[in-house]
Amino acid sequence: MAITYVDAGVNQAAKDKAVDSILAMARRTHDSAVINIPWGFAGLYSLRNTPLFDRSYRNPVLVACTDGVGTKIRLAQRMDKHDTVGIDLVAMSVNDLIVTGARPLFFLDYIACGKADKPRIEAIVRGVVEGCVQSQCALLGGETAEMPGMYAPEDYDLAGFAVGIVEKSKILDGSAVHVGDNVIGLASSGVHSNGFSLVRKIVFETAKKEPNEVAPELGGRTIGDVLLTPTRIYAKAVKEVLRRYKVKKAVKAIANITGGGIVENLPRVLPKSCAVEIREGSWPVPPVFAWLQKLGDIPRDEMFRVFNMGIGMVLIASPVSTNAILRTLRRTGEKAFLIGAVVKGPGEVRVIPESGNSP
Amino acid sequence: MAITYVDAGVNQAAKDKAVDSILAMARRTHDSAVINIPWGFAGLYSLRNTPLFDRSYRNPVLVACTDGVGTKIRLAQRMDKHDTVGIDLVAMSVNDLIVTGARPLFFLDYIACGKADKPRIEAIVRGVVEGCVQSQCALLGGETAEMPGMYAPEDYDLAGFAVGIVEKSKILDGSAVHVGDNVIGLASSGVHSNGFSLVRKIVFETAKKEPNEVAPELGGRTIGDVLLTPTRIYAKAVKEVLRRYKVKKAVKAIANITGGGIVENLPRVLPKSCAVEIREGSWPVPPVFAWLQKLGDIPRDEMFRVFNMGIGMVLIASPVSTNAILRTLRRTGEKAFLIGAVVKGPGEVRVIPESGNSP
Repeated sequence: MAITYVDAGVNQAAKDKAVDSILAMARRTHDSAVINIPWGFAGLYSLRNTPLFDRSYRNPVLVACTDGVGTKIRLAQRMDKHDTVGIDLVAMSVNDLIVTGARPLFFLDYIACGKADKPRIEAIVRGVVEGCVQSQCALLGGETAEMPGMYAPEDYDLAGFAVGIVEKSKILDGSAVHVGDNVIGLASSGVHSNGFSLVRKIVFETAKKEPNEVAPELGGRTIGDVLLTPTRIYAKAVKEVLRRYKVKKAVKAIANITGGGIVENLPRVLPKSCAVEIREGSWPVPPVFAWLQKLGDIPRDEMFRVFNMGIGMVLIASPVSTNAILRTLRRTGEKAFLIGAVVKGPGEVRVIPESGNSP
Repeated sequence: MAITYVDAGVNQAAKDKAVDSILAMARRTHDSAVINIPWGFAGLYSLRNTPLFDRSYRNPVLVACTDGVGTKIRLAQRMDKHDTVGIDLVAMSVNDLIVTGARPLFFLDYIACGKADKPRIEAIVRGVVEGCVQSQCALLGGETAEMPGMYAPEDYDLAGFAVGIVEKSKILDGSAVHVGDNVIGLASSGVHSNGFSLVRKIVFETAKKEPNEVAPELGGRTIGDVLLTPTRIYAKAVKEVLRRYKVKKAVKAIANITGGGIVENLPRVLPKSCAVEIREGSWPVPPVFAWLQKLGDIPRDEMFRVFNMGIGMVLIASPVSTNAILRTLRRTGEKAFLIGAVVKGPGEVRVIPESGNSP
């Protein structure tokens, strides 16, 4: 008997239909810089036609980032709720991109799945579109790869890719950081998209919880809801701060707090002669972290090495501009806290417990 | 008992080591446009510092593509040979990118795996680097995501992202194609990275072949070797042709022959009033296709709808420049054939059998 491509599990026609509705959704994010070509598998983005380019860039540098959502996807699959992981996907790349001082221009998504189920793919892309809207960037393209035999029919994985632009002299490389600078923390929305291998082990494997259980410690929301909360995207806030204080170089460095937590991500932007002291208690730690720590009997140090502990993005600011920056951040809708200071030291981050004693 | 992140299957320190060796490999592909920042999870690419930018672009348009390798990866995993799928990964995005007329600038890779086995990851990245060298673009960044519980320890999947640049007035959108233009085909290296769900079903599931079997019809090479042959990258050849004939607009359109074959990919670049007649027999079909067709008892039409049948890239050229373009392509190392012509018709591709009769 003859074998056709449909027999082998790949249905090109159904895929093409899904592509149409994805394109319609993506158009929500398009501005005049996006050039539509009808047949394309490539996204086109005009640099010269954007007014921002002509006026603002003498020495434009493209910045590119790629990342996935990690095993948070497994939780979305278990809950059969697929319209938020796309936000996480955009957040992971865009939050990495903005720490260079760049503003996002466009984003592309890659969806690998066992079966290109139309409602599921559309839900995923709805999240991606929402993430792009929050990031003020265009969803320029994407690929949905149907790979039966590599993924189970309900399984999927996501990869994202963001491109932004920054003026060369404005690249934030941390070299301007000095002893006495302030450390500003922006509130996270929860665990974001890091540490989920540990989360899943603690919550679902060891403690045998179910995603639809309501935990009183989590304010009466279900465990699944709390854990699936999308990663906060800081693009708008950071863009606004950099725009307002670009002459004074008030912002010295920015760090995205992902896997490795504040103690491993913040040192990356510190000069070798500087350290940072973070004061525990200077920001509210969301209840999900205390709940996870207790449930898994996780040492405090490990919590700070794996999770963001309530701070999703860190800005290092000159003392004279700190209050104005805090005000700007709050006006853009962020919860912003003065959480520490730059001190003399060998490039490390110390978290000082609230009691003042060593941990 | 306390659970740490290493218990949960994620070893950050081992990952960091792998990152170092990947960065060293990536530097092979860097030119003066790449800006190295020591701490970065973002890749930086200067537009203004490239001499090509100042001299050649008045209205620069960025072109971005994303794609994966599909289930060809499963064969690489079965053969435990991981140093060529990276070439396929670059090829899939870069070959999509160049059909717009763009030249590739940089590439990023995303590797999702169950366990970040250092030799395996390095082999994959060696292939990506080789693909970037062949494409004359920089490997600007990447991410290796270790996701135990989502992938088995030996499993992985790949996604790639390419960004290129094209002058707006030089974008190839097919609108210049006219009746009487010639169709030039560039030889593929084999099945490339499309149709592998069908290949695996035919060869390994139904016919129960083993990758290390030697098939006489395949010139004495093993089945696995033949099928795993990396996708040909046409970036250098296409760039050279577009550079030489840019004034005369000798090249009207380019199509990358991927999933859907020549009959579904070529119509995308045709105006609605044009069709294409391809003459079977005007290029040599590699033996792997006859072998697959016989093994799976696949109808001829289906073969042309799934596989490239020996032609990996198609150029539509003005009659007056066709011979010169063929010579240029051959000088850059391509096997190039005049395989058909543009005729009046409703945007379709007809493959005329060698006998002249209907199939």
